[in-house]
Amino acid sequence: MAPGATLRIMSRIEAPRDDATAATGDLVGRLLGALPADAVLTDPDVTASYAHDMASFCPAGTPAVVVLPRTVEEVQHVLRVATELRVPVVPQGARTGLSGGANAHDGWIVLSLTRMDRILEISPVDRVAVVEPGVVNATLSRAVREHGLYYPPDPSSWETCTIGGNIGTASGGLCCVKYGVTAEYVLGLDVVLADGRLMSTGRRTAKGVAGYDLTRLFVGSEGSLGIVVRAVLGLRPAPPAQLVLAAEFPSARAACDAVCAIMAGGHVPSLLELMDRTTVRAVNDLARMGLPETTEALLLAAFDTPDPAADLAAVGALCEAAGATRVVPADDPAESELLLQARRLSLTALEAVKGTTMIDDVCVPRSRLADLLDGVERVAERHRLTIGVCAHAGDGNTHPTVCFDAADPDESRRARASFDEIMALGLELGGTITGEHGVGVLKKDWLARELGPVGLEMQRAVKQTFDPLGILNPGKLF
Amino acid sequence: MAPGATLRIMSRIEAPRDDATAATGDLVGRLLGALPADAVLTDPDVTASYAHDMASFCPAGTPAVVVLPRTVEEVQHVLRVATELRVPVVPQGARTGLSGGANAHDGWIVLSLTRMDRILEISPVDRVAVVEPGVVNATLSRAVREHGLYYPPDPSSWETCTIGGNIGTASGGLCCVKYGVTAEYVLGLDVVLADGRLMSTGRRTAKGVAGYDLTRLFVGSEGSLGIVVRAVLGLRPAPPAQLVLAAEFPSARAACDAVCAIMAGGHVPSLLELMDRTTVRAVNDLARMGLPETTEALLLAAFDTPDPAADLAAVGALCEAAGATRVVPADDPAESELLLQARRLSLTALEAVKGTTMIDDVCVPRSRLADLLDGVERVAERHRLTIGVCAHAGDGNTHPTVCFDAADPDESRRARASFDEIMALGLELGGTITGEHGVGVLKKDWLARELGPVGLEMQRAVKQTFDPLGILNPGKLF
Repeated sequence: MAPGATLRIMSRIEAPRDDATAATGDLVGRLLGALPADAVLTDPDVTASYAHDMASFCPAGTPAVVVLPRTVEEVQHVLRVATELRVPVVPQGARTGLSGGANAHDGWIVLSLTRMDRILEISPVDRVAVVEPGVVNATLSRAVREHGLYYPPDPSSWETCTIGGNIGTASGGLCCVKYGVTAEYVLGLDVVLADGRLMSTGRRTAKGVAGYDLTRLFVGSEGSLGIVVRAVLGLRPAPPAQLVLAAEFPSARAACDAVCAIMAGGHVPSLLELMDRTTVRAVNDLARMGLPETTEALLLAAFDTPDPAADLAAVGALCEAAGATRVVPADDPAESELLLQARRLSLTALEAVKGTTMIDDVCVPRSRLADLLDGVERVAERHRLTIGVCAHAGDGNTHPTVCFDAADPDESRRARASFDEIMALGLELGGTITGEHGVGVLKKDWLARELGPVGLEMQRAVKQTFDPLGILNPGKLF
Repeated sequence: MAPGATLRIMSRIEAPRDDATAATGDLVGRLLGALPADAVLTDPDVTASYAHDMASFCPAGTPAVVVLPRTVEEVQHVLRVATELRVPVVPQGARTGLSGGANAHDGWIVLSLTRMDRILEISPVDRVAVVEPGVVNATLSRAVREHGLYYPPDPSSWETCTIGGNIGTASGGLCCVKYGVTAEYVLGLDVVLADGRLMSTGRRTAKGVAGYDLTRLFVGSEGSLGIVVRAVLGLRPAPPAQLVLAAEFPSARAACDAVCAIMAGGHVPSLLELMDRTTVRAVNDLARMGLPETTEALLLAAFDTPDPAADLAAVGALCEAAGATRVVPADDPAESELLLQARRLSLTALEAVKGTTMIDDVCVPRSRLADLLDGVERVAERHRLTIGVCAHAGDGNTHPTVCFDAADPDESRRARASFDEIMALGLELGGTITGEHGVGVLKKDWLARELGPVGLEMQRAVKQTFDPLGILNPGKLF
């Protein structure tokens, strides 16, 4: 981002009230030049409701205007106006993000893509779907199922989050251990650039290496390089329904040993999830699921193979060899779905413990997973905090979730400190500060630490290349 | 690339002989400051042998020097010297590329990475390998097999080509229909930048979204953004040995119909390859394989599933429904391997037809595959040429291979024209000019056509960001 441009933007935002009002009036007038009135919201009570996503500790302000375009041309118009007037733009989907990446600030334009929600094509032969960014993940997943196809990425918020948001944050989910993250399903994009020009990247073919892979550059860029207005997504054939096994362990380390044995043994589970005791209890408290509260760690493994029962038996044996005290395979898909529901409730349940959470997203090589979980326990003890851990264990991707009372300043301070210490530990173990939630505002100091000075400089140079005026979601990532 | 820098470089190359000799002496002296004498080759007979890869119609010259570093520090030294003296650098692996991307010009530095050929780590738990760029694909593939692991990318040249070259060209192979291309296995990179600084990108974890995905930006960048000196590669568990089926069709269109039916039917073959009659005959002529010469198209399908015979039976039925005149499943892995060998010999066999080939690499949505093959036949008729087609049919990725006598100027002209017409047809059908071979020199005019002006401008801007002086393999891609 151009430092000069940022300074201009900031002084604009901090201008005296009268100037700001006049500027907003000008901005809204220009936007209405090519957008219908119902697509331009300015009531501060309404615009304030678009201020932030679901992350804690991330600053946000009241945007000057929320625009809800329905067409590519309308998005182009918004960007042209933003460039002319040097007003920052933050694109938003369902605002289910967990890093503040979609947060707005005073005077900004919120560009909500939720009305661009058409599924334009589903092709079983080409195994692709072409969609607008506002399509809800679950809507797409169900639509492709009707064609015998499967769109794997399944973040916890899949019933509400949008494909555009998934692309912006490169989000993951439970499926990743077998099927990978969102990035692996984005074949091509139409992107509106900072100055309003439209660029196509990638392809709708199974393969393609024509030029630099700008498609992947946009995936996970949190709206800081351009606005995705159309995506070609790769699909897979729908697999058989998965069967789930639950295994109880006397320690998190024993559960992690089982994870390593399963993966080193060449198994390909369709999910491999871990819930620690704190998480199990929180889920029981919230939803009376009847999960085993005496266990230190609950491991869920699933297979969507032709013979899932045989695969579960093999994996169950590995769990027992690693010290599992109890191994319970689900009898049928319905019982399996119940266990997955428990896992999906984890973050909501942990939020109920003390009212507020900070959800970390550290990913380590899976051989270091046990070291990470032991370390998180020490951090929790040192700071006298409850930190529940649920994890995409097969990926080494953990969500240590710090539970705290936001009204208690000291506890809040300790929560923030423990959150940071967990990231430091993740880096020390050869991991990354974010496996699937993105950097946003929450982790931008940590991004610099992970990338190092040369990496950071080149990432900033890429930002500068695509957004020389610094109007695309400035202050995120870096 | 900076136009000014290019001009400087070009005038340097074209300088009078005495100046050029003096400049080369200076360059070699500087290189020897931190490289052992056996790593700096200047004998013109030797350096000339590093001039080009395996593509036809691509200009090349005699490099001033070939350097063969063994360490990252030595590569950094080479880049520092190149930056100071403004001498272009072309990185090379085994020079098996098919687009001229590794071609050198007079006065350039050839940076051969073949001596950096260590496998640094193989981890069955983390399912990663860490390698230097000069490791040969087959060497890595065999090494990971010993750990029960699988590195899928398998270009036809896999016995000689290097991982660094595979990364530079984002190469594919027979495996892609199930396992994807090289890009999908590159998790993290160490890259020496144009000015000699070292940058790490990506991760060695299963997931990670910290910052922009610069790893993928380097994959397929043909050495034009930086020099890959170390790669973290993702691995899979070794699948069971695959079983192959051969199906004979009375027309290419019928074979393509079978491909569409197989893919729309939700099958996941581990390969799905097509050889047209010209290719079948060429392979028989070369290697007396006894393939059926009366067929218009031979389709090879394979499965590496737990029950490949059952999968082959289902696919065989779809082939028959699409009009196959004969369906022959292999009885065992050895028979399967013979069929694959026939497929792997295709390009070599077609080269023997008239002495020289131009191998195209057009990829279309697989629903348009039949239209492409019909079009190629029309192009061959119009230009009175033999064009054999072998194809990764499951990906819609075809290699129409123009056979011609390079000593015949008119035939050569027609060969080049037909090559271009096939790319035009590919674009018209919604495809790309290159599925897996890259752009290099051969297709750079066509890249501009595929990307369009905005895409091209942004790709050039990315080049400029990473290589402001234009010393990294200039004149490739754009």
